[in-house]
Amino acid sequence: MGKSLVIGVDLGGTKIATAAADLGGSLLSKVIKPTCPERGQDAVIGTIVDSIKEAVGSAGASMADIKSIGIGSPGPVDLQAGTVIFAPNLMWHDVPIVQMLQEILALPVCLENDANVAGLGEYRFGAGKGSKNMVYITVSTGVGGGLILNGKIHAGSFGMAGEVGHMTIVNDGPLCGCGNQGCLEALAAGPAIARKARACILHGDDTIIRDMVGGCVENITAKTVGEAAAAGDILAREIIDKTGEYLGIGVANLINVINPDTVVIGGGVSNMGELLLAPLRRAAERRAIKAAFQKVRIVKAELGSEAGLVGAVCLVLGQV
Amino acid sequence: MGKSLVIGVDLGGTKIATAAADLGGSLLSKVIKPTCPERGQDAVIGTIVDSIKEAVGSAGASMADIKSIGIGSPGPVDLQAGTVIFAPNLMWHDVPIVQMLQEILALPVCLENDANVAGLGEYRFGAGKGSKNMVYITVSTGVGGGLILNGKIHAGSFGMAGEVGHMTIVNDGPLCGCGNQGCLEALAAGPAIARKARACILHGDDTIIRDMVGGCVENITAKTVGEAAAAGDILAREIIDKTGEYLGIGVANLINVINPDTVVIGGGVSNMGELLLAPLRRAAERRAIKAAFQKVRIVKAELGSEAGLVGAVCLVLGQV
Repeated sequence: MGKSLVIGVDLGGTKIATAAADLGGSLLSKVIKPTCPERGQDAVIGTIVDSIKEAVGSAGASMADIKSIGIGSPGPVDLQAGTVIFAPNLMWHDVPIVQMLQEILALPVCLENDANVAGLGEYRFGAGKGSKNMVYITVSTGVGGGLILNGKIHAGSFGMAGEVGHMTIVNDGPLCGCGNQGCLEALAAGPAIARKARACILHGDDTIIRDMVGGCVENITAKTVGEAAAAGDILAREIIDKTGEYLGIGVANLINVINPDTVVIGGGVSNMGELLLAPLRRAAERRAIKAAFQKVRIVKAELGSEAGLVGAVCLVLGQV
Repeated sequence: MGKSLVIGVDLGGTKIATAAADLGGSLLSKVIKPTCPERGQDAVIGTIVDSIKEAVGSAGASMADIKSIGIGSPGPVDLQAGTVIFAPNLMWHDVPIVQMLQEILALPVCLENDANVAGLGEYRFGAGKGSKNMVYITVSTGVGGGLILNGKIHAGSFGMAGEVGHMTIVNDGPLCGCGNQGCLEALAAGPAIARKARACILHGDDTIIRDMVGGCVENITAKTVGEAAAAGDILAREIIDKTGEYLGIGVANLINVINPDTVVIGGGVSNMGELLLAPLRRAAERRAIKAAFQKVRIVKAELGSEAGLVGAVCLVLGQV
């Protein structure tokens, strides 16, 4: 009998999600463990190995049934070398994760950047199903992305493509973690939304957000602002409108450059749904080439937090 | 004996350049004729047919030797239908150029957007030789571009990819021909450069540009400004610096999203060379992800006005 399992691993700074799947991509089992990166890279690799064994066991299979392992990692990653070049939330620098896993498991391992992988998941099994060229944008603590072009992740010449969060949207805008000013991430990620709400409250603006956090403005998150907006709060609406507008400028740039048929917006902030997507679409329509905008679908991601795990499985499905 | 010729046609609003080439892509003959689009589309198609016959004759071959014809047209073009969707400088709207030529010539015809085609030419035989993922930007009357990814033109889902000139660079910037504000084209194309110089002179700024045009500010072109900058004129330098900076922001966005190994800057304005490329690189370095910037070459195009013709030939070389 041939090998009948593939493994997907979604490696994050907080948790490691691991799944065993059949060759059609259906998940058979799922294991979630905390990453605790402060334990060092060997311990994290050990947790990945344990998770794989557990996932295989829960699927009623054995390690000999595994065909291939796909891993999505924060990153930039070096696809040729199989290394994670730099991942601040793992405290990793040039970690040869592919080689380390292969030495322990003696199985083929395929590494990719986590946002690219999540995009691939949405493309194959989520909001991008049936699309040819898809742009995936994830808006949460940061803004990341992935390009799926003609059915494949476009990793670029050095595995660093899809960094849509670092497009400059406002030349002299707020400083970004990357050192540049006015990046989409600095303007539209969760922390920017929360920061804007805090600043408005300290400035004395009228809003229900203050009561929602019992007066503790430091407890405001993007989620708080989203809930206030859903409840009709004017200030919260304005902040989400502006966030959607920034994202829409970025989306328009991507439409003009890539000419996708589908743009998928994922990440925690996308849970605001139409409150965010409506102003995003308006800005994209105003900014993008008309003929290209008319043919593109801009939709919310469907796989939620599972996109990375499903995508990691898809990473090795193609090779089966 | 097999068919030994391919034909490339670079269709422009002013002239039609046509070449016969061997299967290695070497040009054997070249014919240039005025387009005169006001004669109507049938007359323009007739001129293309005449040019092809002339080019074949000059190459000492016969029409029976032609394997395939590649055409770069102002665009957007519909690749499936073989039509030019909209080309203002040809006064064309939904012109089925592929069908029209095939009915006359009974030969395979391959259509692509002109900027994509010029990018392909630079990729195969010009400044992008040896590259894997290349971004081509042409700066002249407008700002156009083409993406060559893994050796192929990325045309996008509807043949409209590569419209880098309509990325928004300054949100509330000058109005662009496309209806959007602050597009790269509205800020950095030749007319923007000339307009800026005129405005500064009317404002009383000190510059040699005024004398260069004998006081007729309406005669100022981007070329005048480039020549003044080369001669050390402070105002002209400032204008070219700012142009380079705008282009650099666009280039940084493309580096972050596409992760190319090579960015090729072509078009008439690129003849300013390092005067333009140095500030362009500085802005791109400041704005792009560091690791991605470090690995990219940003270089001047090498094929000049012949890029479109060489690229049109390349368009059909791959199919030979």
